[in-house]
Amino acid sequence: MLFFTQCFGAVLDLIHLRFQHYKAKRVFSAAGQLVCVVNPTHSLKYAPTRCAVTQTSTEQGGLPPCHHHEAVHDPQLVPCTCPLFSCPWEGHLEVVVSHLRQTHRINILQGAEIVFLATDMHLPAPTDWIIMHSCLGHQFLLVLRKQEKYKGHPQFFATMMLIGTQTQADNFTYRLELNRNQRRLKWEATPRSVLECVDSVISDGDCLVLNTSLAQLFADNGSLAIGIAITTSKVHNSEAEI
Amino acid sequence: MLFFTQCFGAVLDLIHLRFQHYKAKRVFSAAGQLVCVVNPTHSLKYAPTRCAVTQTSTEQGGLPPCHHHEAVHDPQLVPCTCPLFSCPWEGHLEVVVSHLRQTHRINILQGAEIVFLATDMHLPAPTDWIIMHSCLGHQFLLVLRKQEKYKGHPQFFATMMLIGTQTQADNFTYRLELNRNQRRLKWEATPRSVLECVDSVISDGDCLVLNTSLAQLFADNGSLAIGIAITTSKVHNSEAEI
Repeated sequence: MLFFTQCFGAVLDLIHLRFQHYKAKRVFSAAGQLVCVVNPTHSLKYAPTRCAVTQTSTEQGGLPPCHHHEAVHDPQLVPCTCPLFSCPWEGHLEVVVSHLRQTHRINILQGAEIVFLATDMHLPAPTDWIIMHSCLGHQFLLVLRKQEKYKGHPQFFATMMLIGTQTQADNFTYRLELNRNQRRLKWEATPRSVLECVDSVISDGDCLVLNTSLAQLFADNGSLAIGIAITTSKVHNSEAEI
Repeated sequence: MLFFTQCFGAVLDLIHLRFQHYKAKRVFSAAGQLVCVVNPTHSLKYAPTRCAVTQTSTEQGGLPPCHHHEAVHDPQLVPCTCPLFSCPWEGHLEVVVSHLRQTHRINILQGAEIVFLATDMHLPAPTDWIIMHSCLGHQFLLVLRKQEKYKGHPQFFATMMLIGTQTQADNFTYRLELNRNQRRLKWEATPRSVLECVDSVISDGDCLVLNTSLAQLFADNGSLAIGIAITTSKVHNSEAEI
């Protein structure tokens, strides 16, 4: 009996996901655009105490034991950039993507233009929706965060970061677009490097910011569809000069 | 001596305005776009008690005496739509523009695309920046408001309203655009009718909303340049279907 109940639940979930996927495609109605349904994750970032552990190219299964910072720190090592967890991992920039995929199970999507469909917008803050986006030979991290910067006033913050250095990031422009009910909101900017903390980008407000009321205007049945496009900066600059 | 001091002050003001005008043109760098410098006004809306006075096609010089609402109210009469003042004026929709120009000294600009340069963004809330925009055979009211919707957390709200009915407004799409330092923020929507109160548009959050930190990123020396464009709705719909 329990088996049949679980099967029925799984079928219902599949139908729900399929319906959301169809809705997102209908909203953007752009042939060839990949729609990715992204489920929320409660931020556990502030739970354990952060400590530095060095790991290079191989992934370790469980959480490694904590060590205190060494007196001589390798400047080429990057802490884990996953904004969800206070992860003790630290490694070279080249292996950040594999760490995020394998340890944090963050999906990676290919394509210049994708639609990010964040579900369950009503969940209380802090909540994050995260995905990686592979495009133009680089990997980007898209973070949508619901956070109470001011108590009792949750807001949504969306930004895109390059898994690379800021010099590499300066070559790109990302665009986030919300489009529903004859309203359209577009944000274009240069991505930040993941070497910067996503928290500082949000506290600076240098990202797409939505009040809850505005997010509700763009949401469809509790889901928010965000169109994402990445271009090289030259395109952005030439547009600005028109 | 006082005369020379005043003359010198006036010349400095002119240079300052000219410089702001030049900067706004440089930011948008669009040949033929009209740049309008808009000075802030402290909202005096909640000072006097509002009362209804009927006035049709002729303007009255001073403030008329207050009357209580009549039992039978003419539904064709519109209260003053100026969001700055608690104005007792009430008249037909056709004479709202002349009332706003003559009594509230709100400027009117011609052209499909203009740049609205709001000065002195640092002034405390509540502050409004207002202009009328004549385009495609209609007049629109652009309101930028700095308001503390949440105490200690001022935000900027920008919206465009048609001086006409909602049925007429549904034929248009307005676009507000901020563009500075390789960041771009665009808001597109159908204008609301001035028959609705601007306060309700802002409380619904159905407009361009900027946190102070985001406004500062787009501001240049305390001024915020907003590009404004109005099109007929058909253009907007066909774009959405691409």
